[in-house]
Amino acid sequence: MKILSPYLLFLGDTKDPLSVKTSRGIAQWRPERTVGQISMPGCEVTLNLPELDFETAVQMGAKTFILGLANAGGVISEDWLPYLRQALENGMDIASGLHNKVADIPEIKQLADRLGRHIFDVRHPTQTLSVGNGKKRSGKRILAVGTDCSVGKMYTTLALEQEMKARGLNADFRATGQTGILIDGRGISVDAVVADFISGAVEALAPDNSEDHWDIIEGQGSLFHPSYAGVSLGLLHGAQADVLILCHEVGRKHIRGLPHQPLPHMQACINANLGGARLTNKQAMLGGIALNSSALNEQEARDYCQKMSDTYQVPCVDPLRHGTKTIVDFILSQRG
Amino acid sequence: MKILSPYLLFLGDTKDPLSVKTSRGIAQWRPERTVGQISMPGCEVTLNLPELDFETAVQMGAKTFILGLANAGGVISEDWLPYLRQALENGMDIASGLHNKVADIPEIKQLADRLGRHIFDVRHPTQTLSVGNGKKRSGKRILAVGTDCSVGKMYTTLALEQEMKARGLNADFRATGQTGILIDGRGISVDAVVADFISGAVEALAPDNSEDHWDIIEGQGSLFHPSYAGVSLGLLHGAQADVLILCHEVGRKHIRGLPHQPLPHMQACINANLGGARLTNKQAMLGGIALNSSALNEQEARDYCQKMSDTYQVPCVDPLRHGTKTIVDFILSQRG
Repeated sequence: MKILSPYLLFLGDTKDPLSVKTSRGIAQWRPERTVGQISMPGCEVTLNLPELDFETAVQMGAKTFILGLANAGGVISEDWLPYLRQALENGMDIASGLHNKVADIPEIKQLADRLGRHIFDVRHPTQTLSVGNGKKRSGKRILAVGTDCSVGKMYTTLALEQEMKARGLNADFRATGQTGILIDGRGISVDAVVADFISGAVEALAPDNSEDHWDIIEGQGSLFHPSYAGVSLGLLHGAQADVLILCHEVGRKHIRGLPHQPLPHMQACINANLGGARLTNKQAMLGGIALNSSALNEQEARDYCQKMSDTYQVPCVDPLRHGTKTIVDFILSQRG
Repeated sequence: MKILSPYLLFLGDTKDPLSVKTSRGIAQWRPERTVGQISMPGCEVTLNLPELDFETAVQMGAKTFILGLANAGGVISEDWLPYLRQALENGMDIASGLHNKVADIPEIKQLADRLGRHIFDVRHPTQTLSVGNGKKRSGKRILAVGTDCSVGKMYTTLALEQEMKARGLNADFRATGQTGILIDGRGISVDAVVADFISGAVEALAPDNSEDHWDIIEGQGSLFHPSYAGVSLGLLHGAQADVLILCHEVGRKHIRGLPHQPLPHMQACINANLGGARLTNKQAMLGGIALNSSALNEQEARDYCQKMSDTYQVPCVDPLRHGTKTIVDFILSQRG
């Protein structure tokens, strides 16, 4: 499955800048995959891309209409339906990261079928998967793991891919969640597969490759999140990672969504992830720590990273502030 | 969801005694839930239950026709369809533990719908689940964990339930796989739920209960099985167990189905499971070791259990040979 680009990014009548973070991610990380944005009257958000109508977008080559926005409950608004219809009628596929499936709207599904267009509901995997087997695969792999959900694992892996590609390395981001899939046009929502197939899904996502190739696999959740740790462990086993990058948000008070659940200690989190990783790759090592340090000022962030680096003996950066150069240097020095 | 009993157990034209292990489990653990068996011509297997025709079974009160047998690939044989039709026409529901769904056979589904009968495909959960939250629940819980798949977790939990009920304790087996569900008439196949909902499924399966109540939760897989460990970790977090029982088969050479994958050391397996369990229950303890010692003779088995008990300082038994009395004594002395 590959979602064809370039994209036309749909912003709806959004008022909340946070609700278009998927489309913003596409514009940031894959600007070459988009021709512009399209908004409804009343929209108060922009990605600073050209505002296009359907005809112009198609003339510019648009292949897929992207619902990279959140709505209350992941619901598809009735008001969006004329836009979905026009996208199909203008020859585009539709790809959506919403909980509710576009393909479950009968009139849209029937129109897509009649016109021979595809609908990608990327939260709902359709691949036929096998159970994982843990057999050694060729090529090298990096996996982002976390102290919690939403601590910057996707950002970190995309930043690592950018840094490695800029050095001419043979590297590919591997998306495991809906935002990453829409950004890259491919991937598997591992938290949405049947539980028996978690590790198998990741084995399929990052298969045998050339010995100089790096898969940079987006992590999900945390081994210490009581809602989602099963996904995180299956992902860890399936990734067969040579290198783990531990992601953490400075100042987070408790596990996301669960005020009664404390965050793990960094060392416990490192130990648990390395222990799990070594079931399928005995050489697994910690390659760096990536922080979301937005709670700190510049100097505090540098001091904090230095302290973490001294404690855990790996590079520590905020990828947004400092880039990932020191982490890539360290990975290459150890496993390059 | 509760599968109504008593059952009529269908043996098909089976030649292989192992292929009816689900029905044998029902006959062994819930004899009060079955009126008898029904075989096709050529069947070479028996459960030593009364061989009934449909009319007699119905007169004896049979409510559900059970497909508790395995076929190559989990497929439903064409030859079985007349039996399925007769079961429905005689007023029974159908419950199946096969991979392929009975409800996917149009003529059977239509007949069931027309007659108002239920079809339970227990490998395919239909409950609406919530994600887990790890909040403390009332009541007490025991969970079987394992060094591998198929090491006796279901047998151990059913034997513990039997022993505890015989003492007048308030205890319930909680099934997490298809065989256990058919035996007990209720439960959730946790390896078949969407990955995000593993721990939530187990929270729903073993909810708040009275303080003197014991949930005895069937485990699945192993934290050290590269195919299924995600399921095992989600189950461990969702169970919020006070007491873990470690199950192991003496003499197993490698992880089931994966000759390249070694078994974990017992101590590593205990540590990993206690570490995981304590995320949602800080008081989690090891309450015993349950071995499948069929590779040993009687004296060897006793010696082996004694050695394990001395090493890990908990009772160690083969539940089939020795019962679970010493484990229940120990659990009650520690957490009763």
